[in-house]
Amino acid sequence: MGPLVLHEDTRSGNCYKIALTAALLGLPLERVRYDILKGETRTPDFLARVNANGRIPVLQVGSHFLPESNAACWYLAEGSKLVPPDRFDRADMLRWMFFEQYSHEPNVATLRFWFQFVGEANLNELQRGQVMAKRVAGEAALELMNGHLAHRDWFVGEAASLADIALFAYTHVCEGGGFRLHDYPAICAWLRRVEALPGFVAMG
Amino acid sequence: MGPLVLHEDTRSGNCYKIALTAALLGLPLERVRYDILKGETRTPDFLARVNANGRIPVLQVGSHFLPESNAACWYLAEGSKLVPPDRFDRADMLRWMFFEQYSHEPNVATLRFWFQFVGEANLNELQRGQVMAKRVAGEAALELMNGHLAHRDWFVGEAASLADIALFAYTHVCEGGGFRLHDYPAICAWLRRVEALPGFVAMG
Repeated sequence: MGPLVLHEDTRSGNCYKIALTAALLGLPLERVRYDILKGETRTPDFLARVNANGRIPVLQVGSHFLPESNAACWYLAEGSKLVPPDRFDRADMLRWMFFEQYSHEPNVATLRFWFQFVGEANLNELQRGQVMAKRVAGEAALELMNGHLAHRDWFVGEAASLADIALFAYTHVCEGGGFRLHDYPAICAWLRRVEALPGFVAMG
Repeated sequence: MGPLVLHEDTRSGNCYKIALTAALLGLPLERVRYDILKGETRTPDFLARVNANGRIPVLQVGSHFLPESNAACWYLAEGSKLVPPDRFDRADMLRWMFFEQYSHEPNVATLRFWFQFVGEANLNELQRGQVMAKRVAGEAALELMNGHLAHRDWFVGEAASLADIALFAYTHVCEGGGFRLHDYPAICAWLRRVEALPGFVAMG
């Protein structure tokens, strides 16, 4: 593995996933910071050099650039204790990571971004029109997680994996988007378990 | 690997990804069909037994159920020719699969679903309000793919991988959602390469 550089905005849960994975594995990570609200990931240099998709996080491995938070976590953790040894469990871990990007992040993270960083008064009409649908879909994602965790400690198998890291990132700050964590007691207990992992670091 | 059963709606590109992966690998796959427009994946039995998230595809492996199309493809293909041997390339393949679920499918596949299966006249106000944003985001995803493919045959490395399968599924039918394939010549050439793979099967 070459030198690792995380291109990030520290307010982003997607960036935090990578920092947390590296911390839990004891991997050193250089950090380069951007302000997404100032468009710093849409400059011609960023688009040409770091990510043509204009998004962070990007994990830089030597001279190679890897966008998509969960793919970057996979790169760091493949073959480690954070990836289950069983073939089905490994795919099931990815299942929760795809669930996170499809059913959780676009709702739970987006409402946090809109309410906490953009500001409700600054939302455009299209965003305003989507708030209720994202609220309902975000609550459904949290409810599904809560049900899954009712009788188990971790999302997959008997130990923390990348599935827990991916889902922890935006779940533990979901109240910034107006979700109520106390509605999901099994999630709350699981958040405490993640925070107690050796090497855990807080967001930011 | 236990007996494999694909729970699917044959109009879904997400389901097709799994069928195509199995076909390219020569793996036998039993099929169980549902009509999502009739709510057949939201019945109490389906939610309790197959997927609490009420979605297809689900890959059944013996008595275990694996939702999320790209996770199911991973399960089938891990260790095969469809997953690159290099560690960075493997993560880069997942990068394109997460891109597909985050930046491509919610735009390219959703507009196809709305226009081709729900019908423009039946869209509700919230859906109508999102059409333009999904058009712009879908075109950006296709443009990014087209640029990436301008000087390479496959998304990652020198051979077809799950990244190509995941992105092929909804790209090759994107005109059903009003996208114009002839705007993306590198994509068109790549579609022909995928269709020429030994064992390729068409959607449906």
